[in-house]
Amino acid sequence: MLRENWNDAGPGFHPVSSSDYLPAAQLRDLQLRRLQSMVGRAYAHVPLFRGRMDVRGLTPASIESLADLGRLPFTVKADLRDTYPFGLFASPMSVMLRTFAAAGISRGDIVQNAFGYGLFTGGLGAHYGLEAIGATVVPVSGGNTDRQVMLLRDFKVNAICATPSYFLHLIERAAELGIDLRDLPLRAGVFGAEPWTPAMRQRIEADAGIKAFDIYGLSEIIGPGVAAECSAQDGLHVFEDHFYPEVIDPETGAVLPDGQEGELVLTTLSKRAMPMIRYRTRDITRLVAEPCACGRTLRRMQRVGRRSDDMMIIHGINVFPSQIEAALLAVEGALPHYRIVLRREHGL
Amino acid sequence: MLRENWNDAGPGFHPVSSSDYLPAAQLRDLQLRRLQSMVGRAYAHVPLFRGRMDVRGLTPASIESLADLGRLPFTVKADLRDTYPFGLFASPMSVMLRTFAAAGISRGDIVQNAFGYGLFTGGLGAHYGLEAIGATVVPVSGGNTDRQVMLLRDFKVNAICATPSYFLHLIERAAELGIDLRDLPLRAGVFGAEPWTPAMRQRIEADAGIKAFDIYGLSEIIGPGVAAECSAQDGLHVFEDHFYPEVIDPETGAVLPDGQEGELVLTTLSKRAMPMIRYRTRDITRLVAEPCACGRTLRRMQRVGRRSDDMMIIHGINVFPSQIEAALLAVEGALPHYRIVLRREHGL
Repeated sequence: MLRENWNDAGPGFHPVSSSDYLPAAQLRDLQLRRLQSMVGRAYAHVPLFRGRMDVRGLTPASIESLADLGRLPFTVKADLRDTYPFGLFASPMSVMLRTFAAAGISRGDIVQNAFGYGLFTGGLGAHYGLEAIGATVVPVSGGNTDRQVMLLRDFKVNAICATPSYFLHLIERAAELGIDLRDLPLRAGVFGAEPWTPAMRQRIEADAGIKAFDIYGLSEIIGPGVAAECSAQDGLHVFEDHFYPEVIDPETGAVLPDGQEGELVLTTLSKRAMPMIRYRTRDITRLVAEPCACGRTLRRMQRVGRRSDDMMIIHGINVFPSQIEAALLAVEGALPHYRIVLRREHGL
Repeated sequence: MLRENWNDAGPGFHPVSSSDYLPAAQLRDLQLRRLQSMVGRAYAHVPLFRGRMDVRGLTPASIESLADLGRLPFTVKADLRDTYPFGLFASPMSVMLRTFAAAGISRGDIVQNAFGYGLFTGGLGAHYGLEAIGATVVPVSGGNTDRQVMLLRDFKVNAICATPSYFLHLIERAAELGIDLRDLPLRAGVFGAEPWTPAMRQRIEADAGIKAFDIYGLSEIIGPGVAAECSAQDGLHVFEDHFYPEVIDPETGAVLPDGQEGELVLTTLSKRAMPMIRYRTRDITRLVAEPCACGRTLRRMQRVGRRSDDMMIIHGINVFPSQIEAALLAVEGALPHYRIVLRREHGL
């Protein structure tokens, strides 16, 4: 479905090689054309966006430059809840193909996909990307760690997709089963759906004998595949031809220049089913415009370590303290004060 | 991947309309050509099959008619275990498209897929078939019944795929939540992965206000999509252009004529990754050659009610008493005699 969108980048375009290395001026031009088209679609089909633009006297024609994006209001998570259920009908997009290409995965590789299948965007999103790239997918989904270890070994798996905490758990379990992952053909891991530290990367790379790549995404935008690390492992390239990133001051909403830290705001440029305008991710990062050693011209975002709200991500699942509070309040006799203790056991 | 195979059925072929209504002589000719090609591939690439043919002095050229299939030895489940792991790399095939077409599902329908995703062939097999037919898939996977009920209602789902026992459980739970499935747009259910009785069908159709279709498949062959009921609901049409069915006497191995009850044996005609020759399903059925009210020329197999071994299917998972025995024997102090009690609770 994305194949049509790719075509508007001009002739000779190839998803893996071309858009990732587009000269900046050409990329900005592509972004503006896509932004105008996406705002047009959103205005025509989504009452929420049309209403908010009407109130401000804006029409799709008001978007004459990328800077005009700042005239549109933000979108927040509550908007998705309020407009449920239309939101879930967006299809996975093939930027996952380029995510895997950035991690050095190619045609003929055997990749174990331990992201959960079902409504979670990670499983099917990665699955489609791996199929598009010509890899063989072992669609194991989450859980059943002993079986995961067995499949890694028996199928001579070259790469794995998982949450980093689950993969740490898998390393531990493999050791208990007497299997050293460093002896297997496994050479890369694509890890996402939760934040992880440089220390976790070091431990994963040393204990499994692989290169560990960070990916970034969120289900409100597309799921995994918004940004991905390349072999330089120095920030995540945002797939700017599909997602327009801004970094704002979380207090004032003002757009900050490249290099300055703030909250990441994303606007989709090519999504048909569920266009999203200036979505506030609540993730704190900064954009890096300097050239990357890998040659990709796409700006990088710094690895996300913290948020502008109090959300925690546990096993790839978003947990808000307010949800726990609501559950506690439903229990008669529960105290008005509570404390949340978050521990890591067996890598999880 | 199957699209290439479809082409050898001649020009003007369309997967939904054509092969299901092919005149018998043309179908037999197609089957023979495919059988010869498949045996050639199996002989060239699978040591198990080549070795067994060599012992009998057979080569691919020995297959001059469909009756010559009987000269090849059977394949049994233990052969898959002995040749693990090559077996799991077969890709889902698009006969699921015709399965859904037979159930009256078409482009634009919204279908909830409650078959488990991951290594189980049901989830991804149904998913690909539904995408190919142009339906919108709600890829919910198994479990989380309250959410399944909510999605059925909120997304205005037209059809559902599930194991019949799980759907009975879902009906019960919906009633507890105050939701009458008869009030929803749901109009069809595609049920498989375990045997079910005419009484279960009656209850499902009455309590959910839908038409319930039986499908048949097994992971050794392809997963779901080997055979499917049409609107006449009088036996399951075997997709004979891809699978060649025989019914044998389970004691002697002799091939029985159409209409006579025995064990179903399947030979794949178009599968590239994992060809299967005369696989003994252990399922007891009979083949019906008489014309069907729906006009499909494909022979039907009678709904499977029992097996030629003692395997039980629980929630779509195959369970052999010998597995339970092996587990009990591993527990010190367990008695040498045991009894397996199989109960149905809340529809499960």
